[in-house]
Amino acid sequence: MPLLRFDLVAGRSPEALTALLDASHAAVVDAFGVPGGDRYQVVHQHAPGELVVHDTDLGIERTDDVVLVQVTSRRRTREQKERFYALLTDNLKRSCGVQPSDVVVSVVENSDADWSFGHGRAQFLTGEL
Amino acid sequence: MPLLRFDLVAGRSPEALTALLDASHAAVVDAFGVPGGDRYQVVHQHAPGELVVHDTDLGIERTDDVVLVQVTSRRRTREQKERFYALLTDNLKRSCGVQPSDVVVSVVENSDADWSFGHGRAQFLTGEL
Amino acid sequence: MPLLRFDLVAGRSPEALTALLDASHAAVVDAFGVPGGDRYQVVHQHAPGELVVHDTDLGIERTDDVVLVQVTSRRRTREQKERFYALLTDNLKRSCGVQPSDVVVSVVENSDADWSFGHGRAQFLTGEL
Repeated sequence: MPLLRFDLVAGRSPEALTALLDASHAAVVDAFGVPGGDRYQVVHQHAPGELVVHDTDLGIERTDDVVLVQVTSRRRTREQKERFYALLTDNLKRSCGVQPSDVVVSVVENSDADWSFGHGRAQFLTGEL
Repeated sequence: MPLLRFDLVAGRSPEALTALLDASHAAVVDAFGVPGGDRYQVVHQHAPGELVVHDTDLGIERTDDVVLVQVTSRRRTREQKERFYALLTDNLKRSCGVQPSDVVVSVVENSDADWSFGHGRAQFLTGEL
Repeated sequence: MPLLRFDLVAGRSPEALTALLDASHAAVVDAFGVPGGDRYQVVHQHAPGELVVHDTDLGIERTDDVVLVQVTSRRRTREQKERFYALLTDNLKRSCGVQPSDVVVSVVENSDADWSFGHGRAQFLTGEL
C-alpha cells in the first residue's frame, strides 16, 4: 500500500524507468514487510526547470539523475523508514547507477480507513487485508 | 476543499476526462457534505510505464482505465471515507464505464490552518468558511 | 525541507517559471525560517481540462494564471502558515503579476523521521540537520 510518487528529469529510457521502479519496489517490500503485490507507483518526468532539488545546505551534489520520491503509507516505525532510505539508495545504485547523493525521500503517513484498493471498499477495514 | 489528484493512463478524450472529474466531484459533495464550489482537481496523464497499480495480492484486475486518486482533506470520519469510496466507484461506473476494480484511492488528512483558497488568507481560520 | 508541488496551466515561459519558483522559495525561507538551500520544488504544467480550481463558494475568480501549491513540511505553527500564505501571494504578485485570487495552498505535515535528503540517511535523526 505504500504509494510512491517519483519526480524525475525526463530522459530515461522505458527500460531504465522499469529498472528504477523495480529496484524501488524491492526496497519497499524489504523495509516495510509488505507483499510483493503491494505496488503502487507513479512517475512524473519533468523538463529541467520543473524540478528543483537543492540540499538543505548539506553539501550534497545533485545531477540530472536525481530521484525525488514521495511516499504515502500507513504508519511505519522510525527503524522501517531508516531501513527504507538505506535500501532504496543501495538498490538504485546497484540496479540503475543512481548515486546515493541523488536520492531524496519524503514520507507522509495515513491510516487504515484511508485506503481503497478497488471495488469501493476500504480493505484494511473490511478484513480483506 | 478536498484536493483530488488523479493519475491516469493517457488516452481519454477531453470529454471523457470532464465526465470523470464531474462524477468524482459528485461523490465528494455527497460523501463529505461540502458545497458544490468546493472543487479542486488535478489530473496527470501518464505513459503506460509511468503508472504501476497492482492489487496488494487481493486478486483485483486492472486495465488501462485505472483511476488512482489521492485525496487531501480536512479530517473525515471513517463512515464518510467508506461512503466516498462506494459513491466514487458507483459514479465512475455509471458515468464513465470505469470498472470498480479499476478505482484506487488514498486519503491524507490535514487541518484548518492548512488551507488557503486565495488572497493569502487561511479561510478556515478567518471565519470566511 | 518543505517540498512544494506546483500545479499550473501550461504556457509560462521558462523564465516566468523560474521567477515563480524563486518568489515562492523566498516566501518559504522567510515564513518558515529555513536555510536558503532548503529548496525542493516540483512543477506540473497541465492542459486546461486537467486542472480544476474552484473557490469553495467564496466568490474568488480564477484565471489561467492560477497557482495551486501543495506543501509537505515538518510541523509548522498556525502563525508560520498564515505568514507563508500572505508572503507567497505578495511575492507572486510583485515578481510574477499573479493575482492573490489565483493562489491556492494546501499543507500536509510530517515528522523528523520522514525525510532523507540523500545518501540513504534521515538527516533530521542523525544530527546532520
